[in-house]
Amino acid sequence: MTQPAPHAIPVETLRAQVTAIFLKSGLPRAEAEAVANVITDAERDNCKSHGIYRIAGCLQAIAAGHAKVEATPLLQSAEGAIVEVDARGGFSNTAFEVARSALVERTKELGLAALVIRDCLHFSALWHDVEALAQEGLAALSMCPSYAFVAPAGGSTPLLGTNPMAFGWPRPGAHPHVFDFATSVAARGEIELHRRAGTPIPEGWAVDETGQPTTDPEVALAGAMLPFGGHKGSAISTMIELLSGAMLGEPMSREALDFTQGRALLPRHGALILAMDPARFAARSGRDPLAEGEKLLTAFGLQGARLPSERRFAAREVALRDGIALSAAEVAELDRFETLGLEALNA
Amino acid sequence: MTQPAPHAIPVETLRAQVTAIFLKSGLPRAEAEAVANVITDAERDNCKSHGIYRIAGCLQAIAAGHAKVEATPLLQSAEGAIVEVDARGGFSNTAFEVARSALVERTKELGLAALVIRDCLHFSALWHDVEALAQEGLAALSMCPSYAFVAPAGGSTPLLGTNPMAFGWPRPGAHPHVFDFATSVAARGEIELHRRAGTPIPEGWAVDETGQPTTDPEVALAGAMLPFGGHKGSAISTMIELLSGAMLGEPMSREALDFTQGRALLPRHGALILAMDPARFAARSGRDPLAEGEKLLTAFGLQGARLPSERRFAAREVALRDGIALSAAEVAELDRFETLGLEALNA
Repeated sequence: MTQPAPHAIPVETLRAQVTAIFLKSGLPRAEAEAVANVITDAERDNCKSHGIYRIAGCLQAIAAGHAKVEATPLLQSAEGAIVEVDARGGFSNTAFEVARSALVERTKELGLAALVIRDCLHFSALWHDVEALAQEGLAALSMCPSYAFVAPAGGSTPLLGTNPMAFGWPRPGAHPHVFDFATSVAARGEIELHRRAGTPIPEGWAVDETGQPTTDPEVALAGAMLPFGGHKGSAISTMIELLSGAMLGEPMSREALDFTQGRALLPRHGALILAMDPARFAARSGRDPLAEGEKLLTAFGLQGARLPSERRFAAREVALRDGIALSAAEVAELDRFETLGLEALNA
Repeated sequence: MTQPAPHAIPVETLRAQVTAIFLKSGLPRAEAEAVANVITDAERDNCKSHGIYRIAGCLQAIAAGHAKVEATPLLQSAEGAIVEVDARGGFSNTAFEVARSALVERTKELGLAALVIRDCLHFSALWHDVEALAQEGLAALSMCPSYAFVAPAGGSTPLLGTNPMAFGWPRPGAHPHVFDFATSVAARGEIELHRRAGTPIPEGWAVDETGQPTTDPEVALAGAMLPFGGHKGSAISTMIELLSGAMLGEPMSREALDFTQGRALLPRHGALILAMDPARFAARSGRDPLAEGEKLLTAFGLQGARLPSERRFAAREVALRDGIALSAAEVAELDRFETLGLEALNA
């Protein structure tokens, strides 16, 4: 039996508290709820890097006037297979929520549709959106640029972002099949941790300013991170720049980085989600696409291979049953944010 | 100055000869031309693995009755954003040509459309199709399953194909930006070459039947190949199985392999191409998406990083100027195929 941790907080209690924090900080209710949902859900799934740890950064963006909290996302009338929402400088999450049902409807109507999010602040994991779409029975591929910290394979200068990519596929009677990863070998924060600890980084993570391999975290941070998987991962990262940056007429990662002028701010750019309705794609085959998918996905477990989100779903079940285990320091910080709002940043 | 090779054959001369070979072998003209085009274009671009080397395999498939040469691809009336063509057991290339203008038209109308190819024989590189779409001003992402020779990351048993993925992006006044790669670390043929030479394969290419790493090509062929890029490449390969296999109601790689029952036949399955119109996606931004793309792509060269198809395009320019350099054995085989057709297989 798993014992509840000393500070086990029920998921919905945490959600209410995180929502209260953002309301106190000046976000309209819809935005406060959208941001609180992705943060709470990440904490629930033990994705600590996208959980309550992110609250401080969001509050800083609001306090700096960088997050346009007064802006309501503007959903454009869908044209053809493209659903478009302008976040107008607000968080991507609210924009997704505003456009979500239009995307689902258009995808079911046409078989395939795209959601374009313009001019959004982006801090959350992409799995949240594709999982929501998979729960509506849709396959979804999501991508966005970020800050240019990654050199292309064979290069020496940052040009690409850590450009995440997420994919969701519906599974009957089970959690959806979901993956979500950065297309860099490692996260920038991992290199930073090595720098602080004075330990070398593994080979293959980064190059120095001349493009030579390095295991020195200091040199790596001044040089460039590398994409995963050599020239193939580099090609995928480049595709993400083109499809979710250039194609949308939104900033690519280098422009997003230039925009911050060295300040520690959230990236501001666009995002692209492609949604597909398997029932429509398979219709003429006479096969059930989800039953076909199960033939593949259930075979993974038979040979001991893990599906991408298994650990996350296992953590979720524990959290829903026993609550989310938080440290005393985390609990204290949440309470301080809830009481003081943005003023907590100056305390 | 590059000197013409002794057996330099003009590109269009080779194209005419390869077309004649397939006409002689019983393919209808449209199919003979479609197949001859991808083979000639690959040879022209010095992609030897998809060039005239493939003719023998195609003739064997025709002789075995495995290629349904009498079948005309059936273009369905497009529904929503999905254009669908049933290859009816013929080569994928003819099906693509039959559906191509409908796909372009639907993509320009809706901003985004998918081409579903059903029940096709597949032997060609995917870059050919995405390059053709990029030349029409469209971005395109193409994928298909293949034979199950690849284990998922952490697994031990073949479940995934070498599942190729290709992407094309239009460039003003230049060759399109195109990548095309297998999602396995290496091609099966490369392991076979090591087996014949009695040399070990590099670490990371394959595992034995229990999932342990191996550098023995014999053990690797009996075990499983690995996806590129660890669990991230494995996730992408799995996505390709789901989107271009399960979602279409067409065979995934394991079923495609079972279908051949150990015979050396071409894979028969479906294929998926997603096409997007950057002009439509960028319309509300006021930016020129292709000019934005150039900011990224021209920066690659400035730091000495190569774009994926650079070598191919360089080879093409040489071939168009000097002809395609073929060995005496290659020239003799082409002549024999042209004279004898399918009977050359028995000679």
